[in-house]
Amino acid sequence: MKICRVDRTLVSTNRIKELGHRPLLVVKEKPDGDGQVAVDAVGCIPGDWVICVGSSAAREAAGSKDFPSDLTIVGIIDQWPPT
Amino acid sequence: MKICRVDRTLVSTNRIKELGHRPLLVVKEKPDGDGQVAVDAVGCIPGDWVICVGSSAAREAAGSKDFPSDLTIVGIIDQWPPT
Amino acid sequence: MKICRVDRTLVSTNRIKELGHRPLLVVKEKPDGDGQVAVDAVGCIPGDWVICVGSSAAREAAGSKDFPSDLTIVGIIDQWPPT
Amino acid sequence: MKICRVDRTLVSTNRIKELGHRPLLVVKEKPDGDGQVAVDAVGCIPGDWVICVGSSAAREAAGSKDFPSDLTIVGIIDQWPPT
Amino acid sequence: MKICRVDRTLVSTNRIKELGHRPLLVVKEKPDGDGQVAVDAVGCIPGDWVICVGSSAAREAAGSKDFPSDLTIVGIIDQWPPT
Repeated sequence: MKICRVDRTLVSTNRIKELGHRPLLVVKEKPDGDGQVAVDAVGCIPGDWVICVGSSAAREAAGSKDFPSDLTIVGIIDQWPPT
Repeated sequence: MKICRVDRTLVSTNRIKELGHRPLLVVKEKPDGDGQVAVDAVGCIPGDWVICVGSSAAREAAGSKDFPSDLTIVGIIDQWPPT
Repeated sequence: MKICRVDRTLVSTNRIKELGHRPLLVVKEKPDGDGQVAVDAVGCIPGDWVICVGSSAAREAAGSKDFPSDLTIVGIIDQWPPT
Repeated sequence: MKICRVDRTLVSTNRIKELGHRPLLVVKEKPDGDGQVAVDAVGCIPGDWVICVGSSAAREAAGSKDFPSDLTIVGIIDQWPPT
Repeated sequence: MKICRVDRTLVSTNRIKELGHRPLLVVKEKPDGDGQVAVDAVGCIPGDWVICVGSSAAREAAGSKDFPSDLTIVGIIDQWPPT
């Protein structure tokens, strides 16, 4: 799983219905890196450091085997970077 | 999921029948980057910023578990880059 | 899906039986890049620009869910690079 | 599978319940590289060189088909780097 | 599939039982590149150029759908580099 920081929320009005109402967030591995879109399964806010799961595990982690996600936030890291 | 911009449509007359008539689009993560081919599940036009799902989730997002896609456009981003 | 050019055929006499007699081709994303091996599901010749599907979709695209492919050629692009 | 070194444990109090109580570890492919999060299925300690499996195989390696992992430690390497 | 060269065998005494007794080999895409671990399904020796399949196809190629592999050697290339 990747360690990412939540950057912002993402709004997509025109999207496939399978995405439902799960929040979509832009997350970044590095502050100046490219953003990726992750499905939020835990309830994050911008600034949180989170664990993002990819591959086929992202689907079920987002709620069901049919959920169209390849990146899902599965946990908020208590303290990061480590001291 | 990746954030990409739709570049153009792609025509492939000689293709496997499982691809059906779903539109194939060339999308790019960066303006001068390499293009990738995505299946359009929402109805995009060149210039749109879109959310592309990969991995095994791309199959069902394209319409069925048997669809041979590893990159499917699942939503159009309302505003990108963010202001 | 990736856009690749067919470079050459590849011969592997000692291989697992699940690969059957499907042709194996070396494909490249860039002329001087590293080659990857793809299963040909459409009938290509060296020089063709093709669409290659990866991830789990490569298996069924190669003929069945049990086919051991992670990269399968699913279409020949009519015209590439675009004019 | 990747060859990684275990760096530290990771604590995430707020996480999806499917992660259960499996230990999460930060692993690195290079000493100064970015860390990734792996599920520990063998019992490692920081400093161990381990084999990490990704893709869909990471799920079952972590204990069940429904486990939300895309990187699971499946073995400790007896001697690494090789002498 | 990737084209790799077999570098050496890898011993991991403490590993999950699902790995069974399948040989694990370190393979490299480039002579000075990082090694990856692959499951040997054909019977290779160091120095062989081989075809490695990744993604979910690596599991069944290693013997069964439950085998925890994300990289499996499925064929030995007759002649590489090509003359």
